[in-house]
Amino acid sequence: MASNAFDSVLASLQSLSISTKDLVVKHAPTTSPDSWKQAISDVASSFSIPQGYMFTKTLVFKPKAAKSAPPTPVVLIASNDTETNTAALAKHLGQKEMRLAAPDLLQEFLGATKDDVSPLSINSANAAPLIVALDSAIASSSESFAVHASSADQTLFMTGTDIAKYLESTGAKVNFLNFEELKNAAPAAPAAAKPASAPPASKAKAAEASKIPEAELIGITVRKEGDFPEWYSQVLRKGDMLDYYDVSGCYILKPWSYTVWQSIQNFFDAEIKKMGVENCYFPMFVSSDVLEREKDHIEGFAPEVAWVTKAGKSDLERPVAIRPTSETVMYPYYAKWIQSHRDLPLKLNQWNSVVRWEFKHPQPFLRTREFLWQEGHTAHLTLEEADIEVKQILDLYRRVYTDLLAVPVVPGVKSEKEKFAGGFYTTTVEGFVPTTGRGIQGGTSHCLGQNFSKMFNIVVEDPNAPPEKRGTPEGKLHVWQNSWGLSTRTIGVMVMVHGDDKGLVMPPRVSQVQVVIVPCGLSVKTKAEEREKILDACADTAKQLQKAGIRSKADLRENYSPGFKFNDWELRGVPIRLEIGPKDLEKQSVLAVRRDTGAKSALPMEDLSATISKLLDTIHDEMFKKADDEYRSRRKVCTKWEDFTRILNDKCHVVIPWCEVEACEDAVKERSARTGNEGEAEDERAPSMGAKSLCIPFDQEQFGDITGLKCPQCGKDAKRWTMFGRSY
Amino acid sequence: MASNAFDSVLASLQSLSISTKDLVVKHAPTTSPDSWKQAISDVASSFSIPQGYMFTKTLVFKPKAAKSAPPTPVVLIASNDTETNTAALAKHLGQKEMRLAAPDLLQEFLGATKDDVSPLSINSANAAPLIVALDSAIASSSESFAVHASSADQTLFMTGTDIAKYLESTGAKVNFLNFEELKNAAPAAPAAAKPASAPPASKAKAAEASKIPEAELIGITVRKEGDFPEWYSQVLRKGDMLDYYDVSGCYILKPWSYTVWQSIQNFFDAEIKKMGVENCYFPMFVSSDVLEREKDHIEGFAPEVAWVTKAGKSDLERPVAIRPTSETVMYPYYAKWIQSHRDLPLKLNQWNSVVRWEFKHPQPFLRTREFLWQEGHTAHLTLEEADIEVKQILDLYRRVYTDLLAVPVVPGVKSEKEKFAGGFYTTTVEGFVPTTGRGIQGGTSHCLGQNFSKMFNIVVEDPNAPPEKRGTPEGKLHVWQNSWGLSTRTIGVMVMVHGDDKGLVMPPRVSQVQVVIVPCGLSVKTKAEEREKILDACADTAKQLQKAGIRSKADLRENYSPGFKFNDWELRGVPIRLEIGPKDLEKQSVLAVRRDTGAKSALPMEDLSATISKLLDTIHDEMFKKADDEYRSRRKVCTKWEDFTRILNDKCHVVIPWCEVEACEDAVKERSARTGNEGEAEDERAPSMGAKSLCIPFDQEQFGDITGLKCPQCGKDAKRWTMFGRSY
Repeated sequence: MASNAFDSVLASLQSLSISTKDLVVKHAPTTSPDSWKQAISDVASSFSIPQGYMFTKTLVFKPKAAKSAPPTPVVLIASNDTETNTAALAKHLGQKEMRLAAPDLLQEFLGATKDDVSPLSINSANAAPLIVALDSAIASSSESFAVHASSADQTLFMTGTDIAKYLESTGAKVNFLNFEELKNAAPAAPAAAKPASAPPASKAKAAEASKIPEAELIGITVRKEGDFPEWYSQVLRKGDMLDYYDVSGCYILKPWSYTVWQSIQNFFDAEIKKMGVENCYFPMFVSSDVLEREKDHIEGFAPEVAWVTKAGKSDLERPVAIRPTSETVMYPYYAKWIQSHRDLPLKLNQWNSVVRWEFKHPQPFLRTREFLWQEGHTAHLTLEEADIEVKQILDLYRRVYTDLLAVPVVPGVKSEKEKFAGGFYTTTVEGFVPTTGRGIQGGTSHCLGQNFSKMFNIVVEDPNAPPEKRGTPEGKLHVWQNSWGLSTRTIGVMVMVHGDDKGLVMPPRVSQVQVVIVPCGLSVKTKAEEREKILDACADTAKQLQKAGIRSKADLRENYSPGFKFNDWELRGVPIRLEIGPKDLEKQSVLAVRRDTGAKSALPMEDLSATISKLLDTIHDEMFKKADDEYRSRRKVCTKWEDFTRILNDKCHVVIPWCEVEACEDAVKERSARTGNEGEAEDERAPSMGAKSLCIPFDQEQFGDITGLKCPQCGKDAKRWTMFGRSY
Repeated sequence: MASNAFDSVLASLQSLSISTKDLVVKHAPTTSPDSWKQAISDVASSFSIPQGYMFTKTLVFKPKAAKSAPPTPVVLIASNDTETNTAALAKHLGQKEMRLAAPDLLQEFLGATKDDVSPLSINSANAAPLIVALDSAIASSSESFAVHASSADQTLFMTGTDIAKYLESTGAKVNFLNFEELKNAAPAAPAAAKPASAPPASKAKAAEASKIPEAELIGITVRKEGDFPEWYSQVLRKGDMLDYYDVSGCYILKPWSYTVWQSIQNFFDAEIKKMGVENCYFPMFVSSDVLEREKDHIEGFAPEVAWVTKAGKSDLERPVAIRPTSETVMYPYYAKWIQSHRDLPLKLNQWNSVVRWEFKHPQPFLRTREFLWQEGHTAHLTLEEADIEVKQILDLYRRVYTDLLAVPVVPGVKSEKEKFAGGFYTTTVEGFVPTTGRGIQGGTSHCLGQNFSKMFNIVVEDPNAPPEKRGTPEGKLHVWQNSWGLSTRTIGVMVMVHGDDKGLVMPPRVSQVQVVIVPCGLSVKTKAEEREKILDACADTAKQLQKAGIRSKADLRENYSPGFKFNDWELRGVPIRLEIGPKDLEKQSVLAVRRDTGAKSALPMEDLSATISKLLDTIHDEMFKKADDEYRSRRKVCTKWEDFTRILNDKCHVVIPWCEVEACEDAVKERSARTGNEGEAEDERAPSMGAKSLCIPFDQEQFGDITGLKCPQCGKDAKRWTMFGRSY
């Protein structure tokens, strides 16, 4: 590979936030696995080589094809120790007579020789015709693997998951294969032996024979408690919520997750309309003048603003920013539209996406460069009116979490330090991820006070001014403003709270499919007639439930076993699975299996809709209760500083009687971070993070009488119970 | 003004697409209106000065203010001949003792002297504290006005509307004032004379006294048939559909228009879900590699693609594009997700915004740099299946126009020349704007064939391949794809078709308010008790209608006369106005006034919801019929070339028996353009535009038997009746 081509590979790794340990190890040219090992060990003292790394092998095959058809090279990438059975691979890929590719083909398609070919030889420019077969032992591993960089005398170390991520980013068709399984898999019935119009019985046989061999590969390969970041990533991808995208920090929301967002939209949109809020749409572009008008505010956003500087091949005369939020986009127009107190209140909302080009490690739903949200912006005559709305909105946010997502949150107010830049005060609903013990801001409703209205000159004649002030500047009033937003982050919190080792666990009210019905107990011996009956019963049950407004689906796919289907829907977290087999039909009942608890029960077919409807509510309530109990048990009152970091390190939130002094908040963070370092192992991504104040809960009484208590950190008089914790 | 500051003013004019005739006229310095006139006339021979231009005057005042308050200078901009009454202006603006500003204040706030101060002294950096009073005779005029450029020895000519547009773009608070009216307006009751707790009778008096003096100014000032572009712009702004924005080509969709879009969304989203389409969200960013993969396709979009090259202050390593449409964004993932024919059909849709940085003259809703739309992208096993869906979607688009917007469209297929770049064939619903006689593409549903699937390698094993081909390249099948989109352009078409000289005429099914109820017949003599009764009756009627699902509003604003309210709601096009006065109450009836026809009828209060519900349907039907009759009468069959351009110049569409040869289409365009030039005056913006083929209507029979007919342009055998016309 030419070195400038390799520069572009490096750039693309970087844009995917794939760490390459900033290191290309140079060594003697290698021509075999053994010479490679030797070459690296020769230079190991001069470079920092990762512990316990493994070697990869990259083999390129040319399957047999008609002369007129363009070749579709197969690139096999596996751990060097993995036994790779070419014949089984060919069969699995539906290819014939795969032979190792000749040097000219290697050069033509990958610009490489057999010695320097590597996963990094594939890039977005050459990926289209390739079929890539990647060892799933690599794809799911966070261990380091050696791959050749631009030539056989250079090596780069990458984690297995990063190799997979990179390959996917190129647009190549990547097949994840467990070669171990593949080798042992029963050979599929030869294609020629399957007549197109086979009768049902032989169809079943064919179905059995062509059962997807990687069925066992599609499950989650790590435990939630074991490797949470990897678990989260797998649950999202294998649960069909999202896919990774070739622009770093951006993700594709697939229907399974977008439906959750639409459920939230439907609920929230209807509620705010009742409050007199109207929807609108402001452009995504902001001129720099306007963006930068409110200094405190923009300071918080400036480093993350994306700038459009070109259109086609022309440079724009004045670059325009993409909104990171719309305060400064909208308020110049508020100044124009609000000419009189009769124009108040002005209550606008928009459903849009915003861009914050963060350079921190991106995380699907939680921290992404573009995200979907709603942002409400309102203007009021009085602070009192603004106050009321701030709380009404916050309560709607609470309801999104508790009533739709079955996720507990703590509503409260942010400390001065943590409030919205440029605002007056910020209210929040704070969530909690038990696995990491970290808090997560769930949605915020801000009172902006008069800060923005002063900056943007949003002013009316005060109808309540004393007569002698009317028409004078003292008779003018700067409006009181609020802004509030809730984003697709909600979905990430929901997944983290409810998911388990088998995949997603969807709260019933937002699940695209609430009930899946799987035909069971069919075998090769089942008579065609009986098979039809079962399938019909499944389809009828789905229809009946749909009529009652229950989102149901009969999974009548022919080539998959019930076990495969169970796994598939468990991965996606469908709340209830109904199984219908010959015996159920006989007894006129169905077997219901709950996704959240695994509990099974036989339900009579009669009046099934009502039963299921109740069961869905029960599931919602119990999922909420379980999560709420967990959260409560992890919210610990602490009145002595000695206990603070211990509680924190137990993955809990710490509620202290707090003085509300900003310097004290800084001290808490610093002291809890320091001690954290010395403590036991914590979440990998936040090992030594200090505790921030998360919120001052509205419900103060639950923590008891604060009178006379002192702040455990600084000893000053405590004002209110305040929740501290590590957070996302 | 420093000359570099003036460069930025020029840049900002340009970014607003304001023509400054590319010309700054240099002349002797001027110090008075007379010396200015003289100076320009002295140099008139060296510059091309517009005909019949007028001079502006710009006066800056400092109103009295408390010492602690920052000054809020008032900038008066009027035609030089307009008499401007400072006292009346001060009163109108709620200011006191306005005095001409001292030189230092002028310098501080506008960086100008009294001689060179001009509308262009105001810019986005200094606009915030200013109050601008702009002569409405300027704001609504398409005549040219002389304004000083960067100094008193330079003059620029701008149209009045451009001056207004520029001022608004700066973010200044602009008041549009008819000084003639203002001078004559009854002086408002002194503020001090209005006790806060005045009894109702004196309230009414105060209301009468403070009646908004510019009530007469808020109406549309030009006729639809007279100056269509200006009419369109005024109708949108004064009807509260949108506001202009300070990034050129972008507009703010206010709730009044966004509601229309949400109505369309609700209908269409429900319908496509019935078809099995699922919603998703793909990132707005595309990497250049992926964007450019399909060459034919990207050629159509490349010059309009906006590029993000910076984040914060850092240059991105690889610029990313903002999607102009999502084919190339989505299809690499389709290739990954579609691994088997069992994954088909894949039917995804997204509601998003796309960016096409057009450099042509922007027009709200019709041609904007960012617009909202939905884009559906589906993949099928067979062409037949794809074909069916293309038509189903097109029929939904038709229903959006006919059933929601009461706008007639002609469904058909595009010629080869006009089809979607990179697609197989394109179907369209074609609308018509009678005032200009131009066609407008209303929504398109494309079959992409296998072109993109070949480019992106979206391939499955063909389940219908003969057994011997299975597992070979010949046994593979590239999927058949469709894409289809409908945008906020719909709203522009709706406004252009239905609006009249009084403003918007909203089709009932998409109007945010369907019925407005205005209390009438109240005067100073009305007793408080009777007043209450009337107001209650209005509020009750609104509630009663709302209960029946009719979007209703009682306009109980106190400081506005019924006449003002009538105008206000007529501007916004509310389909039905109900008037309730003492006599109506006595007779237990209401007076209903239709917006579309102006027809009045007394309706009994009993069972009003049912009556109104029916009336709304009638209005919809009659609005559609009126527009449809008009469109039909302007669709003329033409079999002789001699008639072609005459029909076109009569602002009609021309339906010819067409040969469907691409060269002939080019010839039609060229010949009709040439002749158009010699013909009578046409729409200003498309004076000599040639006719394009708009569509080949599906309903061929309406035009009669085509057998044996020849193409009137080239004489070849005709294939199908085809509609040609000028278009947007």
